[in-house]
Amino acid sequence: MKIIDIRNTQIAIGDPPLLNAAGLHAPYALRIIVELVTDIGITGLSEIPGSEKIYQALQDLRPHLIGQDVFQMNHMKRLIHEKFSKYEDHRGVSPWDQRLIVHLFSAIEVACLDSIGKKLERPVVDLLGGRSRDKVPFAAYLFYKYEGAGGELGFGTDSSASGWLKARQEEAISIDQIVYQAKSMCSEFGFQSIKLKGGALPPEVECNSILALREAFGPDVPLRLDPNAIWSLETAVKYGKKMEGVLEYYEDPVRGQENMALLSKQVNIPLATNMCTTSFQDLPSSIRLGSEHIILSDHHFWGGLRASMELNKICQTFGRGFSMHSNSHLGISMAAMVHLGAAVPHLDYALDTHYPWQTDEIIKGGKIPIKNGFAMLPEGPGLGVELDREELQRLHEKFLNCGLKERNDEIEMKKVNPEWQFELQRW
Amino acid sequence: MKIIDIRNTQIAIGDPPLLNAAGLHAPYALRIIVELVTDIGITGLSEIPGSEKIYQALQDLRPHLIGQDVFQMNHMKRLIHEKFSKYEDHRGVSPWDQRLIVHLFSAIEVACLDSIGKKLERPVVDLLGGRSRDKVPFAAYLFYKYEGAGGELGFGTDSSASGWLKARQEEAISIDQIVYQAKSMCSEFGFQSIKLKGGALPPEVECNSILALREAFGPDVPLRLDPNAIWSLETAVKYGKKMEGVLEYYEDPVRGQENMALLSKQVNIPLATNMCTTSFQDLPSSIRLGSEHIILSDHHFWGGLRASMELNKICQTFGRGFSMHSNSHLGISMAAMVHLGAAVPHLDYALDTHYPWQTDEIIKGGKIPIKNGFAMLPEGPGLGVELDREELQRLHEKFLNCGLKERNDEIEMKKVNPEWQFELQRW
Repeated sequence: MKIIDIRNTQIAIGDPPLLNAAGLHAPYALRIIVELVTDIGITGLSEIPGSEKIYQALQDLRPHLIGQDVFQMNHMKRLIHEKFSKYEDHRGVSPWDQRLIVHLFSAIEVACLDSIGKKLERPVVDLLGGRSRDKVPFAAYLFYKYEGAGGELGFGTDSSASGWLKARQEEAISIDQIVYQAKSMCSEFGFQSIKLKGGALPPEVECNSILALREAFGPDVPLRLDPNAIWSLETAVKYGKKMEGVLEYYEDPVRGQENMALLSKQVNIPLATNMCTTSFQDLPSSIRLGSEHIILSDHHFWGGLRASMELNKICQTFGRGFSMHSNSHLGISMAAMVHLGAAVPHLDYALDTHYPWQTDEIIKGGKIPIKNGFAMLPEGPGLGVELDREELQRLHEKFLNCGLKERNDEIEMKKVNPEWQFELQRW
Repeated sequence: MKIIDIRNTQIAIGDPPLLNAAGLHAPYALRIIVELVTDIGITGLSEIPGSEKIYQALQDLRPHLIGQDVFQMNHMKRLIHEKFSKYEDHRGVSPWDQRLIVHLFSAIEVACLDSIGKKLERPVVDLLGGRSRDKVPFAAYLFYKYEGAGGELGFGTDSSASGWLKARQEEAISIDQIVYQAKSMCSEFGFQSIKLKGGALPPEVECNSILALREAFGPDVPLRLDPNAIWSLETAVKYGKKMEGVLEYYEDPVRGQENMALLSKQVNIPLATNMCTTSFQDLPSSIRLGSEHIILSDHHFWGGLRASMELNKICQTFGRGFSMHSNSHLGISMAAMVHLGAAVPHLDYALDTHYPWQTDEIIKGGKIPIKNGFAMLPEGPGLGVELDREELQRLHEKFLNCGLKERNDEIEMKKVNPEWQFELQRW
């Protein structure tokens, strides 16, 4: 079952003006859709975050992978390591991971698993040891945001929208607006946990937003706050103490494992991370320092679904919780996340997803439904999704027209506020 | 692809009178052959160490697993945990692991993977991410022993044997005899590493055996000594110092992680274990204490091939070496060990196997060849081996006739020396 072609397509998907520690989401988020064509007529799919660097690396990789057997994932992983070992592969200081090699692994491995599943007529979850659960819990993912729908509408809105589609366009800067956003999103999708992306407004506002959400939803809805590592240790301790007994977990309030370890001694809230411990290389010091209680996996950033299963086993072995991080994404990534979420034996927390924020879709039949806060596994073999080629073409043209080549939330923020600049520690 | 029947067959295989810290190998080693029959006419195979307790548990498990889909390994693992959670599941103090649940996992998981591979027409290694290498290195496994071929011959020998088959019958108590055993075994199989099972004779003899092997084979053949945790810390330090620069690794010279950690500070030889760190639960303290440098996996004792892949990733992540432990076994276990050895990305050491000591075989076509110290992957889908039903029946009858119900090397030793008794620390 050999690879005879790999098609990498850059796309741009509409994304509302969401605020975070790194600035502002552009009107479009970039993704790359990978189609891995095999000699038996089966094509495997995957989706990863887009950038010119990653796209070029995928293109460079093509001739090395064509002719490979889709089952030889260990070999292809080694091949990718060898070919790209000369790259400096740093995570970077942004909330999202910028390493090249893990993106490439993920792109290739997920597409291989999709094609193997299609050949076997089995879902990808069954290639990961089978279901540990039938439906996968996700959390509402709240953002402070400017008014606007994103995409062509930018800061504009579609006045015909209603329900969540209307709410997702609205400004959310005040505490009342965040509570309204939460209610709209939970009403639409039935989420039973809520995460608030922080690091955008002064800590007092964000802390009070959490307290207001607790007031609005009561103690049965777990709450999380993610300041994206932009708070000082003192700030994180000060506001952490106000949120003890309220937060389910406190996600990357400070930067670096050492600060997380110091914080964990002073605040009685489990700490979660997708910024301080983000690779297998980071795990020994995380374990030694006791810097985090919960690791937020992301198959795009940990090198695929099988590596994420290994991370799950490590978390279970060393007494760490396991949940999932997300970036703006479409249905192929969502399908992979749901298969992984169904497979992992060790899962105590609802997973993150930006999925409700995107209205574009690239899979046939529209978006994967989330009901009562749970996503069901897509039916059918492999990932259980089929590529909508018309939408692929449409979103590729959006990519060509939008002028974006990589994610840079600082540039977007400067368009609104030219004085604004990214800071490693703002408060 | 549902399980419609599981056939568990107890067998006894001839085993020579090998000495170890727990006593003496009986004339027969016990194994259980598992045949997992699916509704599409494919049968998956596995082989695990035999005892009445394990056999009864496998029989008890049958009705719970019949009807299950072979892909739902995560679910079956949970089910086995639930069903047997009431058992006290201790490793025990013997050199071999006596836990029930991991044996059951291994028996079921390997048979599931074999059946999935057969259905897919792919080797099991391809269900573990594909080949990291084409041939798998094994080490010579030397034993002090009494004269005898084992099996019906017991302490007797077959005078028509020649080459290694003759050498395996001969007494090996003196240093010269051990060197002769090593030369015979390496000449037959081409092994390029040598392990000596210790813990049987006074430490000085064992240490001098290692030095004599170094003299005989030169510095290019890595040597290992395994006293099976029966030495005191003082003894392990004293003789360890004499073997610095000679041993590739020092396997379980002392009992317990604390002693291993103390030893590692005093002797400059990497420490390996299959007695002090033998489960995922043991890993956090092993890592924290730095008690061992190399973990010896064993898919029978770590809960199957996928769990062993996870162990491999943990070893890679935490900077530990990975190799493999063995017990007396036949070709189904050997095939599983070879598939695992071919798949693991992280492997720096030749694997252990008792395989040369056994002349019985249960797979068609005879024993899996070892040439130049390497085993090639069996050809064909799944494990690549087929059950020889006549041999199964013959070895089952040997089981019925031999009267053994579990491994007990102390009882065997007492038949030779009634005064002998097992000691947790002998020297």
